[in-house]
Amino acid sequence: MPRANDPRAARVFNSSRPPQGDISPATQFIRCQMIHAGGAAAKLQAAGGVRSLAFDASTPLQLSSGEALSPLNIAFETYGALNAERSNAVLVCHSLTGDQFVASPNPITGKPAWWPRIVGPGRPIDTNRFFVICSNALGGSMGTTGPGSLAPDGQPYSLRLPAVTMADAVRAQAMLVEALGIESLFLVIGPGMGGMQALNWASAYPKRVFACVTVAAAAKQSAQNIALAELGRQAIMADPDWRNGAYLQHGVRPTKGGSVARTAAQLAGLSAQDVRTRFEGARTKERFAFNADNANDTLRPQGAGFVDRFDANSYLYLSRAMDGFDLAADFGGRLANAFQGGATRHGVFSFSSDWRYPPDDGREIARALAAAGAEASFLEITSARGHDAYMDHEPAFEAALTGFIDSAATARGLALNGGGA
Amino acid sequence: MPRANDPRAARVFNSSRPPQGDISPATQFIRCQMIHAGGAAAKLQAAGGVRSLAFDASTPLQLSSGEALSPLNIAFETYGALNAERSNAVLVCHSLTGDQFVASPNPITGKPAWWPRIVGPGRPIDTNRFFVICSNALGGSMGTTGPGSLAPDGQPYSLRLPAVTMADAVRAQAMLVEALGIESLFLVIGPGMGGMQALNWASAYPKRVFACVTVAAAAKQSAQNIALAELGRQAIMADPDWRNGAYLQHGVRPTKGGSVARTAAQLAGLSAQDVRTRFEGARTKERFAFNADNANDTLRPQGAGFVDRFDANSYLYLSRAMDGFDLAADFGGRLANAFQGGATRHGVFSFSSDWRYPPDDGREIARALAAAGAEASFLEITSARGHDAYMDHEPAFEAALTGFIDSAATARGLALNGGGA
Repeated sequence: MPRANDPRAARVFNSSRPPQGDISPATQFIRCQMIHAGGAAAKLQAAGGVRSLAFDASTPLQLSSGEALSPLNIAFETYGALNAERSNAVLVCHSLTGDQFVASPNPITGKPAWWPRIVGPGRPIDTNRFFVICSNALGGSMGTTGPGSLAPDGQPYSLRLPAVTMADAVRAQAMLVEALGIESLFLVIGPGMGGMQALNWASAYPKRVFACVTVAAAAKQSAQNIALAELGRQAIMADPDWRNGAYLQHGVRPTKGGSVARTAAQLAGLSAQDVRTRFEGARTKERFAFNADNANDTLRPQGAGFVDRFDANSYLYLSRAMDGFDLAADFGGRLANAFQGGATRHGVFSFSSDWRYPPDDGREIARALAAAGAEASFLEITSARGHDAYMDHEPAFEAALTGFIDSAATARGLALNGGGA
Repeated sequence: MPRANDPRAARVFNSSRPPQGDISPATQFIRCQMIHAGGAAAKLQAAGGVRSLAFDASTPLQLSSGEALSPLNIAFETYGALNAERSNAVLVCHSLTGDQFVASPNPITGKPAWWPRIVGPGRPIDTNRFFVICSNALGGSMGTTGPGSLAPDGQPYSLRLPAVTMADAVRAQAMLVEALGIESLFLVIGPGMGGMQALNWASAYPKRVFACVTVAAAAKQSAQNIALAELGRQAIMADPDWRNGAYLQHGVRPTKGGSVARTAAQLAGLSAQDVRTRFEGARTKERFAFNADNANDTLRPQGAGFVDRFDANSYLYLSRAMDGFDLAADFGGRLANAFQGGATRHGVFSFSSDWRYPPDDGREIARALAAAGAEASFLEITSARGHDAYMDHEPAFEAALTGFIDSAATARGLALNGGGA
């Protein structure tokens, strides 16, 4: 892996080839990097607007289960430019139902960027200043190896894909980041499942993470989140079109079960008050319509879109990976031990009305960080928008996040507008 | 309705007919009561071991929705004997998945009594001392009018049954209690959904409830409980065998969807730690088995039994009724107003590891009662058993409940062993 003072790295970055066709400067950089890295271990691919790095059999992904996954594909997007020192890279980890298109439309689904208020020119994670990477999570369905990917035998993995964990997903991201020639990330950040990954990054690779921001997340999945996810999984598996996981081979999709799983994700995003409002029909004079097609008008249309764009088996794998997340359990049951000795500075953000990852979860992380002697700040944002507040217009969140990032950037010697130290 | 000083009532109770065949003394009492009450409004029925009172068109149940439900059937069990003063009656309200067989086996399913530790000879609710009534909730599936009952047109109601609320269920119970000639209940008690009904009783009929005990319940259904129930409902409605609710007419049952709903109820009963333990597979080296038949071995067998004995449409109706429960909302948003001026004494019990109805929910009730000037005691029982701790061997709970009941009985002038004041 090239280091910041590695002449190869500088040569790559200073490559002044003009853009070729639709190849963005970032893609160009990656391509150069691949050449300089030898080109053997990972190959840049692009199909249907989805870019990925394909790692061949020489670099399998070692899974927590003890199995090795190979070949491995990691789909990702980048925004902005890496500076000469390679010190301005930001890794954004997406939520359970998110993808790598954090700041640009998803070319497959046509859905807009999922975090445009946070990532983009002039935004808290300013793409004029930072080189932003966002990869589709391991087990996902947007180009990274998951249950819908083809196994070496040419058939979809489906349930033959080994179990994956949050730590495995982070290890895959680390392979991507390393292949991109980035030794140390300035920032790892993510909401929900992405926040779990960010915490795992800081714990597993303390020297490779300068700053870490956890948004609306927890160091351990709660019983209620597990219960909701389990119901979504069971609904998928109860759908006759699930076909014991082999629906792709049968040319069908468990859309009804997938729609229930989507409801789990959607209810998760609402505030408690909004959940209640949606179902208070029983207290009004209206008779409820118990109808699979219209019982829940405001949720279902999105549900239909969801099942088209999100693979049901990916939901099974990723939600199980989240259920198994318990960072303290890997450190003798004491969360502080997960961060002991690390120099990463942490920002922990929770939203007051988030009942899935309530502020107490954020406080627990902050307390553990303090106990580990880490530099950490915790902020509970007052919001009526529930978990999904992280995607909404929340000026207090944006201002606080900008403050945290600017302060960290100064500490890292990053000038206010791009460039190196 | 006979009053305690009504000579008719005394005559009924003192009836010394010998038991006839399988007619228990309680049934005998009820039969006599029916005769004395005129026998026109309600008729005692028995079929397959399930007893019920059938109210004819002259006494419809007025629903919160504004509709009237008639004819109305209320299935119930009784244990112990009513004293001459009719002052020792206890109404037990069952939970979402419970039934009227609180202290005796269910003759339909063969399942044992659901609360034998609390109700029975020598138990906290001593059937040697109290006359215990437990009725199947309105909208249920064990003999009380519900979506599986036949409508006046001879076909099952299915979704044609009007929406029901917790207040409606309590109003139906009040009709039963009145028909039994009981003007004032010594105690109304219930866990979960039953606790909601007990609170509703104390609020709606303060003069008819001497004491009220709320166990592992809340004055308002929480967002997480609503979300879990909604997933169960959607899974039922997504099952092709649900047939838009008309499965009975088609001779099928939505067993797969019902099994998901049952999982919702089962996970609800576990402690957070137990939920986590069940799904921590992702952190172990085991590969998970994503299989609709064995993914969740320890839960599924019960799930199969559940769908046999619990009507899917009843789950839709009752869970929606719970979702809509918000006692404060009917009193200007201030829970204390629901109890203002009432003389009922309250016991509120919560279990430390109950994440569905956490102790904070109990505390909220207790605070409101205190604000209303009611006599109320709140106890958080330390237990690792989650919501279902109320059915387990919890000596602290049993001792505290016994203490509360004995104290209330003394205040009501009930001697320690049966009899009147």
